[in-house]
Parts: sequence; structure tokens; C-alpha cells
Amino acid sequence: MKGFAMLKINEVGWIEKERPHCGPMDAIVRPLAVSPCTSDVHTVYEGAIGERTNLILGHEAVGEVVETGSLVKDFKKGDTVIIPAITPDWGAVESQMGFSQHSGCMLCGWKFSNIKDGVFAEFFHVNEADGNMALLPKNVSIEEGVMLSDMVPTGFHGADNAKVSYGETVIVIGIGPVGLMAVAGANLRGAARIFAVGSREICQDAARKYGATDIINYKQGDIVKQIQEANNKKPVDKVIIAGGGLEAFEQALKLVRPGGIISNVNYLGSGDHIKINRLDWGVGMVHISIIGGLMPGGRKNMEYLSNLLKYKKLDVGILLTHRFKGFGFIEKGLALMKDKPRDLIKPVVTI
Amino acid sequence: MKGFAMLKINEVGWIEKERPHCGPMDAIVRPLAVSPCTSDVHTVYEGAIGERTNLILGHEAVGEVVETGSLVKDFKKGDTVIIPAITPDWGAVESQMGFSQHSGCMLCGWKFSNIKDGVFAEFFHVNEADGNMALLPKNVSIEEGVMLSDMVPTGFHGADNAKVSYGETVIVIGIGPVGLMAVAGANLRGAARIFAVGSREICQDAARKYGATDIINYKQGDIVKQIQEANNKKPVDKVIIAGGGLEAFEQALKLVRPGGIISNVNYLGSGDHIKINRLDWGVGMVHISIIGGLMPGGRKNMEYLSNLLKYKKLDVGILLTHRFKGFGFIEKGLALMKDKPRDLIKPVVTI
Amino acid sequence: MKGFAMLKINEVGWIEKERPHCGPMDAIVRPLAVSPCTSDVHTVYEGAIGERTNLILGHEAVGEVVETGSLVKDFKKGDTVIIPAITPDWGAVESQMGFSQHSGCMLCGWKFSNIKDGVFAEFFHVNEADGNMALLPKNVSIEEGVMLSDMVPTGFHGADNAKVSYGETVIVIGIGPVGLMAVAGANLRGAARIFAVGSREICQDAARKYGATDIINYKQGDIVKQIQEANNKKPVDKVIIAGGGLEAFEQALKLVRPGGIISNVNYLGSGDHIKINRLDWGVGMVHISIIGGLMPGGRKNMEYLSNLLKYKKLDVGILLTHRFKGFGFIEKGLALMKDKPRDLIKPVVTI
Amino acid sequence: MKGFAMLKINEVGWIEKERPHCGPMDAIVRPLAVSPCTSDVHTVYEGAIGERTNLILGHEAVGEVVETGSLVKDFKKGDTVIIPAITPDWGAVESQMGFSQHSGCMLCGWKFSNIKDGVFAEFFHVNEADGNMALLPKNVSIEEGVMLSDMVPTGFHGADNAKVSYGETVIVIGIGPVGLMAVAGANLRGAARIFAVGSREICQDAARKYGATDIINYKQGDIVKQIQEANNKKPVDKVIIAGGGLEAFEQALKLVRPGGIISNVNYLGSGDHIKINRLDWGVGMVHISIIGGLMPGGRKNMEYLSNLLKYKKLDVGILLTHRFKGFGFIEKGLALMKDKPRDLIKPVVTI
Repeated sequence: MKGFAMLKINEVGWIEKERPHCGPMDAIVRPLAVSPCTSDVHTVYEGAIGERTNLILGHEAVGEVVETGSLVKDFKKGDTVIIPAITPDWGAVESQMGFSQHSGCMLCGWKFSNIKDGVFAEFFHVNEADGNMALLPKNVSIEEGVMLSDMVPTGFHGADNAKVSYGETVIVIGIGPVGLMAVAGANLRGAARIFAVGSREICQDAARKYGATDIINYKQGDIVKQIQEANNKKPVDKVIIAGGGLEAFEQALKLVRPGGIISNVNYLGSGDHIKINRLDWGVGMVHISIIGGLMPGGRKNMEYLSNLLKYKKLDVGILLTHRFKGFGFIEKGLALMKDKPRDLIKPVVTI
Repeated sequence: MKGFAMLKINEVGWIEKERPHCGPMDAIVRPLAVSPCTSDVHTVYEGAIGERTNLILGHEAVGEVVETGSLVKDFKKGDTVIIPAITPDWGAVESQMGFSQHSGCMLCGWKFSNIKDGVFAEFFHVNEADGNMALLPKNVSIEEGVMLSDMVPTGFHGADNAKVSYGETVIVIGIGPVGLMAVAGANLRGAARIFAVGSREICQDAARKYGATDIINYKQGDIVKQIQEANNKKPVDKVIIAGGGLEAFEQALKLVRPGGIISNVNYLGSGDHIKINRLDWGVGMVHISIIGGLMPGGRKNMEYLSNLLKYKKLDVGILLTHRFKGFGFIEKGLALMKDKPRDLIKPVVTI
Repeated sequence: MKGFAMLKINEVGWIEKERPHCGPMDAIVRPLAVSPCTSDVHTVYEGAIGERTNLILGHEAVGEVVETGSLVKDFKKGDTVIIPAITPDWGAVESQMGFSQHSGCMLCGWKFSNIKDGVFAEFFHVNEADGNMALLPKNVSIEEGVMLSDMVPTGFHGADNAKVSYGETVIVIGIGPVGLMAVAGANLRGAARIFAVGSREICQDAARKYGATDIINYKQGDIVKQIQEANNKKPVDKVIIAGGGLEAFEQALKLVRPGGIISNVNYLGSGDHIKINRLDWGVGMVHISIIGGLMPGGRKNMEYLSNLLKYKKLDVGILLTHRFKGFGFIEKGLALMKDKPRDLIKPVVTI
Repeated sequence: MKGFAMLKINEVGWIEKERPHCGPMDAIVRPLAVSPCTSDVHTVYEGAIGERTNLILGHEAVGEVVETGSLVKDFKKGDTVIIPAITPDWGAVESQMGFSQHSGCMLCGWKFSNIKDGVFAEFFHVNEADGNMALLPKNVSIEEGVMLSDMVPTGFHGADNAKVSYGETVIVIGIGPVGLMAVAGANLRGAARIFAVGSREICQDAARKYGATDIINYKQGDIVKQIQEANNKKPVDKVIIAGGGLEAFEQALKLVRPGGIISNVNYLGSGDHIKINRLDWGVGMVHISIIGGLMPGGRKNMEYLSNLLKYKKLDVGILLTHRFKGFGFIEKGLALMKDKPRDLIKPVVTI
């Protein structure tokens, strides 16, 4: 079968591979809609997770089930399913502890385009199909559905880990598609005031639609000063980091209240250390917690999040600025994510 | 001063009382807008909390500060403030444990029209003013503001205790003003599908505006059957009880999933026992928890919730079906809450 | 193979059955030590979960792995393992939501002697072996190890759900082996004062060793009065119900503080309804939550709990009042659990 | 009155001051037993919180009430009370949010020897006496009681924030008196294996008594390597930092599992930044949270913790290596904390 792959660091291309084998708990899926992700860019062009050779890229897909293993009970050939970017081994002890993202080892719930071939192929393999796929609701399009693989759960995980609650003031640093979903997620957990930090107008507009009340453009000055001024020198409750470099943590720490939370969902692609300023951190005693986490995958999370689309509580259509039809456009889509033109939020390719 | 009081069980009327005394931590406030509550009806006409003699009624108010004690730091004469129905003693051990509603003893954070005179008076007394009042945001009207005293925090507390999260299916039993705020609260915590149980059309319409996706009319049959059918026999995640009698708990238990929560914010006015069916409760092992709680009061909760109005994340205007101008209309407002005409959600009286 | 079975309600006996089949994720285990449980008594002699025919009993075992499926990675023939009473399907959506006890349906994580043959057999079947077995630590005996299958995790789950914390006052109602482990569990979560309610001297003595500070004998009067008096009329923080009938909940409600928790781990074998007194429950607003749950099973919980034995933080030897050697003694062990002689806490049979 | 004070950075001495004034909510207390703390050493000799002039030192005391304000209800002249190091303003919004340690501003619940005179005086002032003092249980000595002011709650807070649970493996870095209480606190929350990192023999012996299973001496090599080797290369569940410099966080991060917690209770006296290694932190996605917090003060926490002494669940006597009688020995006690002789854990001075 054909797939679009990372040939090696800094090089991508189309390759031929064997169609994956379907184990007794697994499924083989044919993609119907896929979307390239900034993570793919990190992986290929920054070598952020190290060298990979002829690894098929992609981890966001809605697809059609073409084969199921003998122990699969809940899905059958022909089903249209959402496949999350993270497909844990559910029996692993880490999963039993509530951290299925790290089933087996750190980040090992993330398999597609990391430790096995991804979804930019004619067919792809889903481990533990009953636990890692969800039916696409009938009134949700495949293009919308593919936003559930990674953008929605990652952004929402940022808001979840920040424990956003009614009436809080929240900063979201970075408003690419994940950051926009962090804005939407904070809004859907009841945040009142939301500062969205980003410079591109299309993202700023989308942020407002998703509930941001204040837009902060980092190109117009230090974001710490801008936010402090806008907020009458008062600290905010929570900061969600969905973009920016390691310095975002230092900024966040200057802005958040005692007892607040700094929640990261940004894939930190480069740099050595995050720095936590000793005094800003209250000589170690200010109760500001710093947490970062990979999105939770699996079927149930997909079911919950797809219900938000089904019942019209979340409109992901705003994200889909570029729509392509045809397998071959995957290459173009990835190039867009790399170049980030001013009119881009997220491309989607239907097949 | 003049006040509208419970003279005794089943009897209300206007009385004269001394203006309350202002202790060093306290404030005296003149009401600008008040709202009668079903709780007042319970108290007077069901004697639900026992006999009270010449007790001034009312616990929902926005007012103007007319006097502050010597130790009050953050408020001054002339400030327009929201006063929550619950005004805890913040130093009490129960408050230190996170249950300020029960500061001193069970339910003892509830003082107005319970253990001291309420807000239906020319002046009323606020204990620990710095901890129990909040400035009304400039862009929020006094009529809207008064919904923050009880309706919003009580309804939202139901959703909070139910730990509603993204994409869940939630039932709200009872859609008077508190139930409607439970619907809004569930929606603002990310619920996808919300079943709202009620019979009056004006409340059903409001419920839809606040995020309900399905309306269940208990006059059209057993609500358990109706919901099971609508939900394809699948259990729901959470049930918030904001109305109905004690039997609502038995119904809820038949509808909620293992690991789900039944969260009560209904003031249970009569009956002896709630019954938990042993088998529906999984012979004691199904992890469905049953919790009920008085709204959290105090300043910070008012500040958080008022921010939802300030930043247009919640519109309480839908609740305000009856607006009166003039102190004397308090009597009329209470009568409305007692009679519940079909076009009523909530009356407000500005003074 | 031979097994000791429930032939029908009220009748037990030895039967012959086929050795169970080992699927690709499964293991077949030969028991080395087993223990009969009060649950078996409920099942057989009260028909508490309905009729069962020729169902092999038993769900507490340490055993030797004799066969593993092709996909099992972490265990091999000859390993000595603890098998928990609850062996969930880890990929099920309920497990993904944190309630693996109810994987598939309510209580369906409980398979042995409920929905499949139990451990009182020459061989038994373990589903998802990698996720549902744990190696027995070298310095823990097989007799001690078998207490980890059910007694320790069930009692500890009661303390966990009660969220016992430092310095709290806790009541444990019922001090059979599960209740004793609830005492130990409350103690190991930092409870200061522990009221243990039970009548048999051997259990009272054990309770003291496990951390109980006060023994309450229900045969010497109303336990509510006895505890109120001993505690100077002050409410306690938490109540764990590990025995008694449905009336234990009514008693508990009279004893616990606002914000407290009533946590059930008792298999409620008979009766129609638990009753929650409306006034004791603060007309629905006192924040006393009522929760009951089946123990969490699976490998990781076994690993955590076995570490308490390995590192000498918990001594389960006190429970083991009756030790038998020989497969045939299983019948005798079950009879003991049914008759509960005064010198019994828990029997164990090594094979 | 006389007091032992920080005259300026690096200089201490006896001074005369006015006896403090008792406001309506306050109490004036005469110390019966006090203990100098490493924090005092930080404050004086490192200037860690900045310059202070003629500030009476000390924040750990048991004392006798000599005066109470007109609004104080629960204490009276002659009562023997524990006074916590942290005495919050309970009505402050931060306290209402659950972070009373920061009532008013960051760390502002810490008043003694920080923003007002401390307890090393003939008399000292307690704000909000009803909320900030607790009666000393009759069977607890004043010397033991004084350990409840800071050592016990600070160490235990480390274990609480680490959410230690049954059977976990926990590292405690630093085993001075606070670290020892972190060991005891981890043990009392059910930790199985506890690595205690420290070099002084008297502390190592005490750590074992408090539940440590493994002693790691940082003078005998890199602690990361030592612990990894002892733990078979497996990560631990939690790390509590109660000593060491900023580099302890980098060490901790290399040792803790995905989903684990690094919990700091060490007053970080010097250095610019804590560093979080990007890769060790799973490129921002490993769910290891980093939290640090000042102990919770107030009456209820003192009541809970003193119950552990009253009911013999915790023996703080092990800490009290140096006992002095006489007000004048305070100076000697502080010198000991500064010099840390090999036989010292904690000095106490009775008056």
C-alpha cells in the first residue's frame, strides 16, 4: 500500500509498504479524512523525537473499518469511526493508574507516526479496536470528526488539567488550532474572562468566537505587562500553554495567583530547561502547580467529545480553513502546517 | 424600620423593627433590588424549618452599603453590592474544612430569614462584610445582580457537585429558576446532552435557551421510561435534582450509570425518608454517589459568578419574568412564588 | 477437573468440569492458597445474586501459572501470582472512565463465582492476565497473599472512598475481616480516633491491633448513643460500613458531620431500601455524601497493596485464624464462614 | 516586654517592646514552650525574605491565653493552646478559595516573624483567635505540642500535596525535622517503600522509626543513581522535597513516574531558578506535576493533627533531641538550628 512518510529527519515522501496485519483485538481502517498536525512538523523537521526512517506520518483520522480481529466485539467492517491520536494499551499498569497516555512507558500511548506507522496511508492499524475507536455520530461530518482525533482533546485537556471553573480568568498562550480548542475548552468549563495570546488575525477572530474576551498580541509588547495592565494588576486564576517556547512558563508564573495552575499541552520541541523563578514561585511555597500532559485517547473520550459536536455545543468548523479532496493532497496539507500562511488554522484532506 | 415578615407559620405581614446594629466586621445595607424565593414559601407556608415569629423574610438582594464596621477594609458607604443568601462565619472550623455553608452548625451559614432578619426591610445586616459582599460589576443591572444571591449559585452548585464534565449526558429534574440555573451550570461545565424535566412551557423554553437538548414533561408519563427510551436504554452520567419530591432520588437511581452522581440542590420540604433501592444501588457496590448541598456563599463565589454576567457568558435576564418597582411589591412577589402562575419564572422587585 | 460448586441456591458440592480454555490474553492458574468469603455464603445461602447452577465458587486465591495465552507478555508458566477477586476488562469504556469494577455492566468486573467459575477448582481461568495478576513478593507467604485478593482491597476501598485524612475520627461498622481491613485502611490513611463496631472478642482484639481506639459493642445498646456519648456529642468525620444491615446507613447519618462521607463496602444481601432521613440529611443540603463501591481489582492495585506486606506496613496474619492444608478443606472453610464461630476471623486453605 | 529579635540581617539580640494590643477578634498569649526553626535562620542569616529591623523571631509555640478580644467565643484566659505558624485571615478571598496560607497576598497567612512580631517574647498576639488557636489535648505535653505549630503540618503537607496513597514508593529528600515529618506523613498516608535522603545518623535513625525503608546518603554518591539502582531502574510514585537546594527538583524529575508528583515544602532560600529538564519532563506531556506549598494553618488543622498525638498515632518525641528550660535559652536554641550539630534534630525551650 501507499503511504506518505518521514524518510528521515528533514525529508518526506511517498513510499510503498505492506498493508498492516490485524491481530485478534485490532482493526484495519481505511482513512476517509485526515489532517496533518504541527506535531508531524516537529517530528520531521526538528527531529524532536529523534530519527525515524520510512515512518508513515499522520495521527488524525476518521476512517472506515475494513477488517476486525476475532476478539473485536463492538465494531464491524463498514463502520465509520473516529480514531484518536492516542491509542493506549488499556491493560497496562499505567492505564490502570489513570495515565493511559503513558501505557507501557512515557508517552507510549502515542503510537501513530511515533512508534508505528501513522494514518497517511491507504490503510492503518488500530490496536485494541474496541477500546480505541468510536463511531462517528451521524450528524457530524468526517471533516469535523477528524478534529476530535487530536485538536479537541488536546486543547480540552489543557483546560481540564487547569481545573478551570466557573467565573475564572484564564490565559491561553498560543492560539493555533490546539490553543483555540483550549480557549473553547476553558469556555466550556465556565471561564469568564479569557485572554488569548496570538498574533494572526484569523486565529484571533476564531478565539473570540470560541469565548476569548481579550486578545493579546505578543508582537505588540511583553505579554506579562499587557495582561497585568488589562487585568488591573490582579493575577489570573489559570494559564494554559498551547504555544510559544519554554519562556512561556516564566511569563505564566508572573501572572497566576497563589493556588493557581499552569497547564501545558504544548509539545515542547526545543530548548533544554523550563525555568521556574524561585521568587515568583514564592520561595517554593505559593501553591502554583505546574502540570503538562499528553491528551487522553481511547474510545470513551472520543464518545464524550463527539457528543459535543452531535449536540451542537462545539463548532469545530471554524478551524477548517483549508479543505482538500484527494489522497495526494496530504503532502500539500503538511507543507501548509509547516509554512503556516496567515489564512491557515487547520487543513483537512478527505479521501 | 419597616420589614415584610413571617409573623408565624402561614401568616405574613409588614412589621416595624429596630434598624440592625453594625458590629466591627459588619455592614448595614439598604436593598436596591430583592427577589422572593421558593424557600421563603417553604419557610412560611410549610413551616419547613419550624416556627418563626416576626422574622423578616428574604435572602436575595443587591443593595447599597449605608454603614460599615470599624474593621471593614474593602467596602465603604455608597458601594453597590451583591449579598449572597449564604453569609458564613469564615473563621469557623467548618469553613476551614471547606464547608462554610455549615459554619457553626448544620446549615448555619444560612442566616437571612432563617436565624436572623432577612433582606425584605429598609435595612439589613451583613456579617463579616469583607468576606460576604461583592461589588456589583458596572455593566450588570441590579435586577440581574440579585439572581447571583441564590438562583445562580444554587443551580451551579448542583452541577459542581455532580462534577459534570465534557460531553456528559445530564438530567436536571425540576426547572424552576434553580433548576434552570442547574441546566445552565451543567452546560457551562461542558455537558453535551441535557434532559430537562418540567411541565411549564415558559420554563421549558428557558431550559432550551440554557442548553437543554431534550425536554421531559412528567405529566406525559413516567420520566424514567421517557428518558430511557430517548437515551436508547443507556444510563446517563449524572442527575441533578432541583425539584420534585423525595421520589426523585429513586427515579434518578434507575437512570444513572455506575460511577455516576446524583446531586441534590432541592430544599426537601416534606416527607420522612429518601429511599435508595438496594438492587438499583448495586447491592451497595455500584459507585453511584448521592450528595446534596446548600450553595456556597461568600464574597469570592459572588465575584466569580458575577464575572460570568460581566463577560456575557451567562444571561440571567431570561429568568426575570416579573419586574416590579416599589418596596410594597415584595408582598406581591412572594404571593407569585407561592402561586406559580404559568408565566412566572422569577419576580424581582427594585426599590 | 474437580471443583467445589454452588449446585443451586442452598446447595453446595463437588463437581467435575472441563479445564477452562486459555484465550490469547488469558492465563490458566492452579490455586496454591484460597480463602472462602462471606460473599460466597451470600451467593449460595441467600441467593443474593440470583440462581446459579453448578457454578464453581471462590474468588480469593494465590496460584501458580500453568498456561498463558499467546499475547501475554509479563507472566510465564511457574510464576506465583495473586489473583484479585475483581478482574476487569480493561479496554471497556467503564474502565476508561475509572470504574473498571463495572467493565461491561454493573458489577461485571466481578467474574469469579459470579459470571464464571471461581477459584475453588484444580484450575481456573484469568482474563487479561497481564492486567489482572500480580507476582507475589518473595517475602510474602501464600496464605498472607490470598488476603490481597479481596479482604485488603475491599476494606481499604472503604477508607479510600471515605477520603479519610490526617487526624480524622472514623467509625467502622462491622469488624469481620473486611471491616478489620477498613480499620487498618483508615489507620493507614491517617485517622486518629477509630470507633470499631462489633461484638466478637477476637475481632475486637484484632481491631485494636489495626488501629481502633474505641470498641463499640452493638449488643450493649444503641450504637448511635454509645458513640455520641463517647465522642462528647460531636459528630465524626466519616463512617465506613462494612457490616450490619440496611439500618446501618440511618445510624451513620446521625453520627457524621456536615461535609462528611458515608462509605459502604458491605455487600447488601437483603432488604428493599436504604432510608435516608430527610431531616438528618439537612433537608437535602448538608453535604454528607453516600457512596458504596466494589473493590478495584486488577494488577496495579495488587502490586500496590502487596507492597504494604512486602515492606511490613500491614500484617494480615492477624486475620488468619484458621489454616487448613488440602483441597478438600475448602468445604470446611466455607462452612466456617457460614457459621462464624467465635474464634473465627478468616480461614485459609493451602493446596 | 522582652523579646528575642532579628535586629537586622545577620544580627540577633534581646530587645524591649510594647506588649501587643488585643483587637476584638484576637488573643494575647504567653509562651509556655517554643522552638526555633530553620526558617528563622533563613530569615536572619540569609536575608531570605529581605531586611527586617527589630522583628521578634519565632513562630512555633504552645502558650497560655492571657487576654481575649470581645468577639472571641471559644477560648478564655488560662487556656493552654497550640498556635500554628500560619494564622490566616479567614475571611480573605484567598482563604475562601482554599488557600488561606496566602490570605491577603502571597504567603501572607504567615505572620509571625515575617510581617509581625513572633513568639520569642513574653507575650505575643494571635489574630482571629477562634480560628487560629487550638486547645492542647490533656495527654500531650507542651514540648510535643509545639511540634504541631510547624514541623508536623509542614511535613504532612508535603505528603498531602504529593497525594501519597496505599502502597506507593515515595522519596523524601531532606530529613531534618520537616523531612522526618514528611516521612511520617507519607507513612501515615499508606506509602509502602520510603526512600529517605539524608546524611546525619540521628536523622537516619529517626527516619527509620517514622517509616523509611531505605536510607540514601547523598555523601555516598549521586542520589539519582543510588535510588534507581535500589529500585531496579523503576521510577517512584512521588517525591517530597524537604531539603537540599534547587537541584533537588532536577533529581526528582529523573526519578518519578509519568503521572507522579513532585511536592515541595522546602523554604527555598537561595538561587535563581528551578530547572525542569524538557526531555525528562516528556517534552511537556508526561503528567508529572510540580507543586510547592506553605503549610495550612488555623485551628482545625491543629485539632486534626493534635488528635494524632492524643490517640498515639504519631510520636513527635523522637524529634526533641534538645530540651531547655528558661526563656533565655531561646538564643541557644536558634544557634543550634544554625549550626546543626550531629546530634540535633530539633530543640525545644520551655518557659
